[in-house]
Amino acid sequence: MRIKVINPNTTRSMTEKIGEAARRAASPGVEILAVSPRMGPVSIEGSYDEAFAAVGVIDEVLRGEAEGCDGYVIACFGDPGLAAAREVARGPVVGIAEAAMHAASLIGTGFSIVSMLERSRMTMEHLVHAYGMERRCRSIRMTDIPVLDLEIEGSDAQARIIAECRCAISEDHADCVLLGCGGMSDLMARVSAEIGAPAIDGVSAGVRLVEALAGLGLGTSKRQGYAAPLAKAYEGEFGRFALR
Amino acid sequence: MRIKVINPNTTRSMTEKIGEAARRAASPGVEILAVSPRMGPVSIEGSYDEAFAAVGVIDEVLRGEAEGCDGYVIACFGDPGLAAAREVARGPVVGIAEAAMHAASLIGTGFSIVSMLERSRMTMEHLVHAYGMERRCRSIRMTDIPVLDLEIEGSDAQARIIAECRCAISEDHADCVLLGCGGMSDLMARVSAEIGAPAIDGVSAGVRLVEALAGLGLGTSKRQGYAAPLAKAYEGEFGRFALR
Amino acid sequence: MRIKVINPNTTRSMTEKIGEAARRAASPGVEILAVSPRMGPVSIEGSYDEAFAAVGVIDEVLRGEAEGCDGYVIACFGDPGLAAAREVARGPVVGIAEAAMHAASLIGTGFSIVSMLERSRMTMEHLVHAYGMERRCRSIRMTDIPVLDLEIEGSDAQARIIAECRCAISEDHADCVLLGCGGMSDLMARVSAEIGAPAIDGVSAGVRLVEALAGLGLGTSKRQGYAAPLAKAYEGEFGRFALR
Amino acid sequence: MRIKVINPNTTRSMTEKIGEAARRAASPGVEILAVSPRMGPVSIEGSYDEAFAAVGVIDEVLRGEAEGCDGYVIACFGDPGLAAAREVARGPVVGIAEAAMHAASLIGTGFSIVSMLERSRMTMEHLVHAYGMERRCRSIRMTDIPVLDLEIEGSDAQARIIAECRCAISEDHADCVLLGCGGMSDLMARVSAEIGAPAIDGVSAGVRLVEALAGLGLGTSKRQGYAAPLAKAYEGEFGRFALR
Amino acid sequence: MRIKVINPNTTRSMTEKIGEAARRAASPGVEILAVSPRMGPVSIEGSYDEAFAAVGVIDEVLRGEAEGCDGYVIACFGDPGLAAAREVARGPVVGIAEAAMHAASLIGTGFSIVSMLERSRMTMEHLVHAYGMERRCRSIRMTDIPVLDLEIEGSDAQARIIAECRCAISEDHADCVLLGCGGMSDLMARVSAEIGAPAIDGVSAGVRLVEALAGLGLGTSKRQGYAAPLAKAYEGEFGRFALR
Amino acid sequence: MRIKVINPNTTRSMTEKIGEAARRAASPGVEILAVSPRMGPVSIEGSYDEAFAAVGVIDEVLRGEAEGCDGYVIACFGDPGLAAAREVARGPVVGIAEAAMHAASLIGTGFSIVSMLERSRMTMEHLVHAYGMERRCRSIRMTDIPVLDLEIEGSDAQARIIAECRCAISEDHADCVLLGCGGMSDLMARVSAEIGAPAIDGVSAGVRLVEALAGLGLGTSKRQGYAAPLAKAYEGEFGRFALR
Repeated sequence: MRIKVINPNTTRSMTEKIGEAARRAASPGVEILAVSPRMGPVSIEGSYDEAFAAVGVIDEVLRGEAEGCDGYVIACFGDPGLAAAREVARGPVVGIAEAAMHAASLIGTGFSIVSMLERSRMTMEHLVHAYGMERRCRSIRMTDIPVLDLEIEGSDAQARIIAECRCAISEDHADCVLLGCGGMSDLMARVSAEIGAPAIDGVSAGVRLVEALAGLGLGTSKRQGYAAPLAKAYEGEFGRFALR
Repeated sequence: MRIKVINPNTTRSMTEKIGEAARRAASPGVEILAVSPRMGPVSIEGSYDEAFAAVGVIDEVLRGEAEGCDGYVIACFGDPGLAAAREVARGPVVGIAEAAMHAASLIGTGFSIVSMLERSRMTMEHLVHAYGMERRCRSIRMTDIPVLDLEIEGSDAQARIIAECRCAISEDHADCVLLGCGGMSDLMARVSAEIGAPAIDGVSAGVRLVEALAGLGLGTSKRQGYAAPLAKAYEGEFGRFALR
Repeated sequence: MRIKVINPNTTRSMTEKIGEAARRAASPGVEILAVSPRMGPVSIEGSYDEAFAAVGVIDEVLRGEAEGCDGYVIACFGDPGLAAAREVARGPVVGIAEAAMHAASLIGTGFSIVSMLERSRMTMEHLVHAYGMERRCRSIRMTDIPVLDLEIEGSDAQARIIAECRCAISEDHADCVLLGCGGMSDLMARVSAEIGAPAIDGVSAGVRLVEALAGLGLGTSKRQGYAAPLAKAYEGEFGRFALR
Repeated sequence: MRIKVINPNTTRSMTEKIGEAARRAASPGVEILAVSPRMGPVSIEGSYDEAFAAVGVIDEVLRGEAEGCDGYVIACFGDPGLAAAREVARGPVVGIAEAAMHAASLIGTGFSIVSMLERSRMTMEHLVHAYGMERRCRSIRMTDIPVLDLEIEGSDAQARIIAECRCAISEDHADCVLLGCGGMSDLMARVSAEIGAPAIDGVSAGVRLVEALAGLGLGTSKRQGYAAPLAKAYEGEFGRFALR
Repeated sequence: MRIKVINPNTTRSMTEKIGEAARRAASPGVEILAVSPRMGPVSIEGSYDEAFAAVGVIDEVLRGEAEGCDGYVIACFGDPGLAAAREVARGPVVGIAEAAMHAASLIGTGFSIVSMLERSRMTMEHLVHAYGMERRCRSIRMTDIPVLDLEIEGSDAQARIIAECRCAISEDHADCVLLGCGGMSDLMARVSAEIGAPAIDGVSAGVRLVEALAGLGLGTSKRQGYAAPLAKAYEGEFGRFALR
Repeated sequence: MRIKVINPNTTRSMTEKIGEAARRAASPGVEILAVSPRMGPVSIEGSYDEAFAAVGVIDEVLRGEAEGCDGYVIACFGDPGLAAAREVARGPVVGIAEAAMHAASLIGTGFSIVSMLERSRMTMEHLVHAYGMERRCRSIRMTDIPVLDLEIEGSDAQARIIAECRCAISEDHADCVLLGCGGMSDLMARVSAEIGAPAIDGVSAGVRLVEALAGLGLGTSKRQGYAAPLAKAYEGEFGRFALR
């Protein structure tokens, strides 16, 4: 089985970290392709960044279909481009926010999300709602750490994230914590150990969920909203995205 | 006051029709710029098309800020790129699905949406929910007419749409009908007359809502999720979208 | 266009203040009639007051229909008599709570309401829910200031309201604030400036929304729940309200 | 124990019928006062009628407090004036829609409401939601029979109502039926027998719920939204409703 | 009328206390049978305990049907076995959480639950939701007192519970408090007096609601999900529970 | 990895069928223990049956912990005993209704459940809601086939189920179908092929989800509502279930 894990931003060090987490999580015999798009923002911190990242994700899924990928993980906690990716893919596609929330809802009574900039709260709330998790989500705690600080060795980002996770457990009645950024995917074991409760990395969870679905022969249903995109003309610089 | 009405697809005949509806709706002294993006799909029928259209919308809003636009209407009933556009714009931005639903909720007890392809039902449902309109929406009726059929003279598209609107009133307890596509913006008066109940074109409603907000001095709030995009590098062909 | 702005209580100084706000907000050529009912409470602080105010509102809308009014604004943040007024009116009717919430949902990601007595919290919650705004409302902050204190020159009411608005922005993740009483309609510009985020006065928003709807030719739909009241006998002192 | 059952319209024959149902339902030793207001509409078919009926209800509750009533039932299926009545009453107040829905939710998995004019659907939906019964309500079936037809001997109103109740059970997965009008309060036993499932008359249920609450020493809580109305001036013909 | 009040745990002192509360609440002429199951946990503090308690409850309802009981109260605030008991019983069955929430929603605008161990929060939240009370429930406050501490004379359990009830009123905008454990059923009058707002014991409320329903001739509807259990074989030690 | 799949009823032929489906779904190296409880009903068709089945499930999970099981699947579409099983288990536990719904929500826009007796509709609705799937569930279609008919060779049960699945796709806008009974676990491939859309067997999905969670090192969180049962006395025939 070949799973493509797409880091929707273009920061290679984060793509590598994500790829490592994905490989650690994958079952024996599962091949992980960890990529970033060829174009787009170096980090995703708002809806503007996300709109461009979505196109990058689509581009990688189109390429993945040609490469024979069996499924996809979108490794940004805003799940950019998820619905469009599902239209393109035959196999399953999961976003890491989606994967983490589904996993949490199977092992606990309520989760908290710990993430980066306050300005992304709206996106998280939106996803919690879109996935039907509003009665499971105990809190969303933003640390106000810029995404790329996670890539800076020696920054206090990890310590601050762990502190916030601890509060989620002790103050918000959460019994597990979601690591709310692809760039935190190396922290699952460490945070879990520190807080004495499950910490869930969506990249790891996403890989395993895609394995599970593809292993059952379940691809994306093409009967309604995720049917393949219709053939039509695309103008200007997006001309190459026209499908036939 | 200068309002930019963005038809997110690249079909010029539809942009013209939308521009006419916008001008008909606008107050005296309001200037309407009706545009389509320079790149993207000729029609929007699914999430794939929508992802590219969103970039086209953003491009036009960026340009509009330089042109001194006071507000924006996104003239596709999926409201593509709305959150990103709000990050970029100082003034208000409304989508036509959003505008039509808000207007309907102020003049009736329940509305139906009449729109095009069945595959877009998911998007409509999602918007109904995102806008808090789930207790107002009586039904979503898809005619399964391709969007561009609206541009073909002599097609039976209008007749089929009107028939569906009639059913919404008589069978679904709706008391007004939303025209669920930018390409229907010339039908507001005719449908209203035929069904004996308000039919709402989102383009017209959108122009008037933007006028109302801008006239009150209300622009998009920059304090939380719609704060201006952060300065950062963008790679590859999207390099020109990097903001400073 | 002639819009009647009804202050549902009988305090004339508040009616004047509301009329001024309405005129400030109105487009050129729009005539504002600012009135209070001939009977009813001097302020509305609970459901008892509201029930009487509703009759006063209806009385003014009946009169307004005879006066050729094109639309109505109900200028109390509990929107008393709204559904009944819609049955009577041909044109659009909006309440100021409704108007403020709709406006806020178009320019921000979440609002807080700042209002008067704690006992009215229930009413505000009810309206938030009735209008589908439960996912937009960040908080309801009651200052416990009696409504008529807003009419006392030199009171600290304004200062306390502004302090509460500040907290809504800084503590509740709100990005705009709704002024939760008709008597605050003179504060929109001042509060906005002080808190650095949009403050919305429902009177101003209501006038503009009625203009927008009436300008589009949209009156209240008469096909379902807002159909004209049925002709029937009314007994006793309400005999004059019987319609034929 | 003395319970006042208020028929909010002024049709005496209906008040008598309601009084009989209330007496049939009441426990031994409970005194029923069945009254109509001195002023207001002869039937309640819309929000306009309801606004005036609410004042009539309040008037009767004010009088009831002086008469030593221990609780109140508001015998119209729109529960007009309920919140205001609670502000005035020391004892419990229940509406018949509320009573019927609560009773149904304790004995079945889902109910249907069978009621009169289509135009009142909006009000029923609103109450279903306000009382948290949206997951219990299987359907609302309006017969489009005018309320006062229930008072005409020899009309086919009863037959049509029973037919609709039967459909609710056989087509909508309901396991009990709510009689959606005070004027149906004589039908509980007959409908039950005909459909082979519980039919609930809100007047009967309301009397028993008030007995239950008052018997436990539970009156309306005065700590928040149902606190006694504040003393204040009332102008014009409502002057006599000013409380001190 | 004969009502069986089932304390689902096997602690006799608690059963006696519950029986006393039930008898205090019951109308003249109503016979109360207060029992505990013959098997099961001495207290119910989690879903494991609850699963066994449910079987004990069913056992007592089966026996009650033979004994001619007219209705049942399940006297644990998790309402264990409620749906199954309804399948078995001809008359009405109410749980004390359900009874308390319904009573509270008829006399106030919002309630708080004050209960025992933090680990039971999930169960309470689940019931609040199942009963449609999510917009009425202001807070759930767990004292972290083990259930059986309520049976220890001289413990500080009562004092701590009262303190928490006070906070519910003063901090959470609640206007009544639900006593969230069958073992608190002796505290209704005392807590009410101390906090100056209604405190509701579900045992008392449950008895009165069963009286009300049974008095109206309303038993559990057998038309859908509460139809009598089907005749079938039961294996092993549960063989005696097979119905014919 | 060792996964115990518990058929909560005692019909061995169904347990075997479930075991086969589980083994077909399991990854290489995963050991499946397929069992039924030693006591309880031969089929689960209502809440009464479910209450006893829950004890049977718990008994098997207790035994499974001693046997070194890494996770559990509860193979009845009502997910009986799920919360209690989670308290007992260190590893993950999933119900087949839960598993099927989560899988469906990752590959489609809306699912329908096709299941057995009408009387179980209430349970399905309850689970749909408990799992946050109310916006994903297009319909619940009950075939009114008794569960054990699935074990009768030559019955028309399969044909009727497939017919219903087809309707779910063609009439309800569903894009995948959930097989709503453990006894349908042999039908996944056949139904999928016949309807041209994914059909999901919860047993298969459950095994893969448990594998995914356990493979990530995620067991049931013990920090809140799923903490291990407390040590306490159990009386009577349940004495052996007391934990220390």
